[in-house]
Amino acid sequence: MGEEGSALVERMLAGDRVALARLMTLAENRAPGLPALMRAVYPRTGRASVVGITGPPGAGKSTLTDRVTAALRAQGRRVGIVAVDPSSPFSGGAVLGDRIRMQGHFLDPGVFIRSLSTRGAHGGVPRATRDLVRLLDAFGMDDILVETVGVGQTELDVMRLAHTVVVVLVPEAGDAVQVMKAGLLEIAHVLVVNKADREGAARLEAELAQMLHLRPAGGWTVPVLRTQATSGAGVAALVDVLAARRAFVAADAERPARERAEREAELLDVLGEELRARLGRALAAGGDGVRALVEDVRSGTTDPYSAALRLLDDPAELARLVGGGAR
Amino acid sequence: MGEEGSALVERMLAGDRVALARLMTLAENRAPGLPALMRAVYPRTGRASVVGITGPPGAGKSTLTDRVTAALRAQGRRVGIVAVDPSSPFSGGAVLGDRIRMQGHFLDPGVFIRSLSTRGAHGGVPRATRDLVRLLDAFGMDDILVETVGVGQTELDVMRLAHTVVVVLVPEAGDAVQVMKAGLLEIAHVLVVNKADREGAARLEAELAQMLHLRPAGGWTVPVLRTQATSGAGVAALVDVLAARRAFVAADAERPARERAEREAELLDVLGEELRARLGRALAAGGDGVRALVEDVRSGTTDPYSAALRLLDDPAELARLVGGGAR
Repeated sequence: MGEEGSALVERMLAGDRVALARLMTLAENRAPGLPALMRAVYPRTGRASVVGITGPPGAGKSTLTDRVTAALRAQGRRVGIVAVDPSSPFSGGAVLGDRIRMQGHFLDPGVFIRSLSTRGAHGGVPRATRDLVRLLDAFGMDDILVETVGVGQTELDVMRLAHTVVVVLVPEAGDAVQVMKAGLLEIAHVLVVNKADREGAARLEAELAQMLHLRPAGGWTVPVLRTQATSGAGVAALVDVLAARRAFVAADAERPARERAEREAELLDVLGEELRARLGRALAAGGDGVRALVEDVRSGTTDPYSAALRLLDDPAELARLVGGGAR
Repeated sequence: MGEEGSALVERMLAGDRVALARLMTLAENRAPGLPALMRAVYPRTGRASVVGITGPPGAGKSTLTDRVTAALRAQGRRVGIVAVDPSSPFSGGAVLGDRIRMQGHFLDPGVFIRSLSTRGAHGGVPRATRDLVRLLDAFGMDDILVETVGVGQTELDVMRLAHTVVVVLVPEAGDAVQVMKAGLLEIAHVLVVNKADREGAARLEAELAQMLHLRPAGGWTVPVLRTQATSGAGVAALVDVLAARRAFVAADAERPARERAEREAELLDVLGEELRARLGRALAAGGDGVRALVEDVRSGTTDPYSAALRLLDDPAELARLVGGGAR
């Protein structure tokens, strides 16, 4: 970590929002030197409650996040928001349209909103999200809401960061079987039937309640709530459930064992990502040893597996590459 | 690669379906020694046409895949199918229910169907899918259909493997804006409005056609087709489009440059994954050098970033760990 990175962390911890935003950009870009920055941030983390909000596109997650944020602010709680968007030059506009609704909170110093573009992240989205959450945690936010747009494997992985997962559904999203197909029911701590004034809400609620009976118990009873995010109906009950869930998580006897396992897994994650980044820089720089090999792979003379195995069978060369790629 | 792995590859290339299935299991489990197996398979690949089929849960993708398979078989083409499922002990049954419809093809030696569980793959799903596709390609399949259940970042990454991406939508999945939100429109080479007898099909088709006008041109005109997978209506037109697309891809002047970049990216992918796997085995085995460090991380005495940086700053130790984790 350079002088500059160290100063950024100091300023962020002192409450500087510009420094926070710059650190978030470094995390989003998986910048060189990031592990050293996160090492400096880490001791200040672990206090915030992390709430994941997921569900099919069009379920009204952004509006609900907006309402929940307002309710938490009314309780004096500071709120960080990370919106995980599969944004793109083409569809970016539509996604940003949603974010505009959140701008009522932009002038509130107790709220910090950040979109994380998933474009080109190649499996790095859960790690980038984790770092953004850590930064908001260290910044002093009480609640951190992580909202995903899609419903797929990456989004399920992102939700594993959360203490509490809220799955938002709407009647017209189809029957509850589709929810099971997407693997959403299994990760939910709270189920929300949004747009509850629409036809089919009662049926969806009943189906969900029935499916929950099949679920293995874990000490926490998963409630099914009805909301209308646009009018705010049902939001107070949801915020009450979030408070109950915080109390449950704080008292959960299984938490220490889980955290031990998570810390060990994270060591491997950090190592794996950093090694890959250093190798990527070394291959791109193309020093003496690897230039010919990389060109052979590009041209198809050597296949990628053969080339990788040749490097892996030469630990000294590998160490040189990894060392040379460090900053 | 052990004697056994080498023999498996030989048997698979000779047409042994049991050997193919065993190799697929090794790929799904990211088994040690996999890169050496894939190195042996690689020279026999590159002939198949890879078609991705994605869209929201409930759009009827499995039924459509089934119908397209039957139509391709009627043309004498051999078909491999990879179904990427976020399966789980809890929801697995529902997903498998879909697969049962495909069993009409199970006795056909010209078809091979494989589900890939995404559970616990942590960013490894696109790589595992790529390996399954390669195995089917080497086995001699003419067309390989890759179907995803979810719509999220991982699913978008999986679709990057395909020469042709078919996005399947249904009228009730909501308006076309939701499709854009999930990043689907941008990756589509063919748009299918399935369940086209339902209300709203014409409106969805019109919205999609309009949005396509905004898309940057790439030499290929994206058609919007209507199907009813359950009756088979529109499937013949879809299969014709797939043939046109194969001809387009074969003649595409940008293909060599793209393949150069893909091969280079894959070198880094293979290296990164294998290094991580070897490190994981070394940390789990916990030899002299790392046992104390890993325990410090588990207990929280040392944070994961500090521990990772300590190992990264010692290339000799790192080389020892990576070498020791090899098989």
